[in-house]
Amino acid sequence: MAFELRDVALVLPDRRIGTGSLAVEGCHISAIREYPVAVPVRAVLPGLVNCHGHTAMTLLRGCGSGLPLKRWLEEAIFPVEAKLTPDDVACGMTWGALEMLAGGTTCVADMYDFPREGGRALAATGMKGNVCRVGLAFAADNPPGRLEECIRFVEEWSDGRVVADICIHSEYLTNEPFCRALAEANRTLRRPLHVHVSETAEEHKACLARHGKTPIAYLADLGLLDCGGYAAHCVHCTDGDFAIMREKRVTLVHNPSSNMKLGSGFARIPEALAAGVNVALGTDGCASNDNLNMFEEMHLAALVHKGRLGDPTVLPAWDVLDMATKNGARALGRSDTGELAVGKKADLCVLNLTRPHLKPCADLANLLVYSAQASDVEQTYVDGELLYDRGVWPAIDAASIRADVEIRHSRLFSCASE
Amino acid sequence: MAFELRDVALVLPDRRIGTGSLAVEGCHISAIREYPVAVPVRAVLPGLVNCHGHTAMTLLRGCGSGLPLKRWLEEAIFPVEAKLTPDDVACGMTWGALEMLAGGTTCVADMYDFPREGGRALAATGMKGNVCRVGLAFAADNPPGRLEECIRFVEEWSDGRVVADICIHSEYLTNEPFCRALAEANRTLRRPLHVHVSETAEEHKACLARHGKTPIAYLADLGLLDCGGYAAHCVHCTDGDFAIMREKRVTLVHNPSSNMKLGSGFARIPEALAAGVNVALGTDGCASNDNLNMFEEMHLAALVHKGRLGDPTVLPAWDVLDMATKNGARALGRSDTGELAVGKKADLCVLNLTRPHLKPCADLANLLVYSAQASDVEQTYVDGELLYDRGVWPAIDAASIRADVEIRHSRLFSCASE
Repeated sequence: MAFELRDVALVLPDRRIGTGSLAVEGCHISAIREYPVAVPVRAVLPGLVNCHGHTAMTLLRGCGSGLPLKRWLEEAIFPVEAKLTPDDVACGMTWGALEMLAGGTTCVADMYDFPREGGRALAATGMKGNVCRVGLAFAADNPPGRLEECIRFVEEWSDGRVVADICIHSEYLTNEPFCRALAEANRTLRRPLHVHVSETAEEHKACLARHGKTPIAYLADLGLLDCGGYAAHCVHCTDGDFAIMREKRVTLVHNPSSNMKLGSGFARIPEALAAGVNVALGTDGCASNDNLNMFEEMHLAALVHKGRLGDPTVLPAWDVLDMATKNGARALGRSDTGELAVGKKADLCVLNLTRPHLKPCADLANLLVYSAQASDVEQTYVDGELLYDRGVWPAIDAASIRADVEIRHSRLFSCASE
Repeated sequence: MAFELRDVALVLPDRRIGTGSLAVEGCHISAIREYPVAVPVRAVLPGLVNCHGHTAMTLLRGCGSGLPLKRWLEEAIFPVEAKLTPDDVACGMTWGALEMLAGGTTCVADMYDFPREGGRALAATGMKGNVCRVGLAFAADNPPGRLEECIRFVEEWSDGRVVADICIHSEYLTNEPFCRALAEANRTLRRPLHVHVSETAEEHKACLARHGKTPIAYLADLGLLDCGGYAAHCVHCTDGDFAIMREKRVTLVHNPSSNMKLGSGFARIPEALAAGVNVALGTDGCASNDNLNMFEEMHLAALVHKGRLGDPTVLPAWDVLDMATKNGARALGRSDTGELAVGKKADLCVLNLTRPHLKPCADLANLLVYSAQASDVEQTYVDGELLYDRGVWPAIDAASIRADVEIRHSRLFSCASE
């Protein structure tokens, strides 16, 4: 497999838009030649990295929209999730992968039930991903055997471009013995932790009341952050939390759509970046978004903090592009991707620049963040393999998956007991 | 001209998604038949109404992005605007109309220089619009003759689907005699006022200091709101302002992208709606957005207030759909459009629902606001005329306009003095 993308604009790692060509051999970027191109028709970006998702929730897209958080979970989400089968999760994961590939996303960090089936379905699409068995502990050994499952999942997992990480759902859905034991096991496994942190004010305060420390400080003290990690939300994290995250190489995964849609608030992203924290972006699940569109997350991240702080200079476009690409790759321990550089994996997102909303183009980095749409993506490559091409997923039978989604959705949302 | 859109989902005026068909005869909706459609492939919405734009600023797309407001205006925007010719404005307006039509927008309220040329260019595309000569008064009769121009513009204007309204730029770029005289003239003209109001905290406070009242109270006291109007931004409006706006039938035009990008803040939209104010949506100009995408404005409006107020129940999807359609039509004095109802003008936006991000579809109103993209628009009709059809504008030579945009952009941003 060898090809060259010619006469394109290039989003380069030194925060510069170049023009020229990018060559791929096998699964790597083999050459980048810069030369003038008057008005490039296409731009090449590193594939976008979605650092927090519950991808199979595509089957629950928009479920319970507009409900307050507790009712949303208890009345809308949990009853449907209780019906989910491993095949549902595989179907929802595949459907979500199609959506992400169509929007230039090449890698996702996923946290959901039935990760074996979900992870295999993800690997079958050709996408990259970091999956996990969700750590939960409502009481001693409840759910039974979960700790061993979490450990065994990492030990045994091996499937294509998908890797396994350790995970706990959150401080509030686990307990101290569980966390200590997982941290102990991770001295051998040595994987980063996927976790929800300080999403709501209530949860953050309850942790302070229970443990006398913030969720981040609690997890750090238990050793769960010793191999790094990626913490979703962090809406209520303190400056002290940021210092710990920086020291422990824990990435803050910003999910602006979800945090707003559920009324959780605004994570303090410019403050976290100023404190030296690695910040990446995520979509969260489809039920609180309601899509898996990383261009939208970039757009929201770029805008909301300017509004919140009353300062148009915070979070410039390049900060946001980094969050969606190389910061995400770093979060997931994937130092071989996230940048357009020779020797890196050819995870690429190719945008068409001819639609009216991208013309004229005074500053492509800004346009990518403020004006580009996921639908401007023409092609998406993972390890040099063309996985999305102008409305078509060459390796996937999208029509039959779409039909399957409709059938499963009808079953899940039917009122009849089963 | 007669046609029928069959087997579609319909966004109906009583805040209900129906399925069935919509028939058009001449320029009106002639029939709506409701019947079951299992999985509709398309949805029909009223054409979106963009209630505040400076459309020709497409030529300045992204100009000065990231600069603080004063430097943005003085270093980036004003020097380029000083070079704009009437032909530039016509070209930029046409290009903006193409972008808006491709995203389902059928009507725009525009405020910019050279409104005769801009308005004619807009009318030539087939779009609807409310245009105006911008009222400015830096001192007595400066710019010279401007008051008479503003009045004559309304008296003389007549061009297709485009109408003329009265306008002042703002309280701070006019003076009391100018406003009084325009209000006096409007006792005959009887047009709504297009105006910027309380966009920044500084401007709002300066008005209080100058006049002892808010911009809205000042304009109301001078009689400029006696025939209604549409006030862009209103970021710093008070509850007292909302009461005046309700009484005077003045629409609050929410521009979430622009208000965030420039660091102005968040207008208090749920509060304004609760106070009975008509709220519509706008994109503002391309230099502070950086596009003319009303689906993005809907999405932002639906999300940011939930985040700001920590409440997922504020601004439900139907409120936002109304803001983008019938509230906008009402703002612009267009009682014959903005709704899918028999007898209304056939201003229509037809969406394709088959892409992954719109499946499954538990609640179409929510999906339209939270997940749909401007690029999902397949067709846009104005007065029953097909103006956009799957990537093509049947009545417009888009390629030659695109080339013209590039040439004018190069000239405007060249460093050479002219």
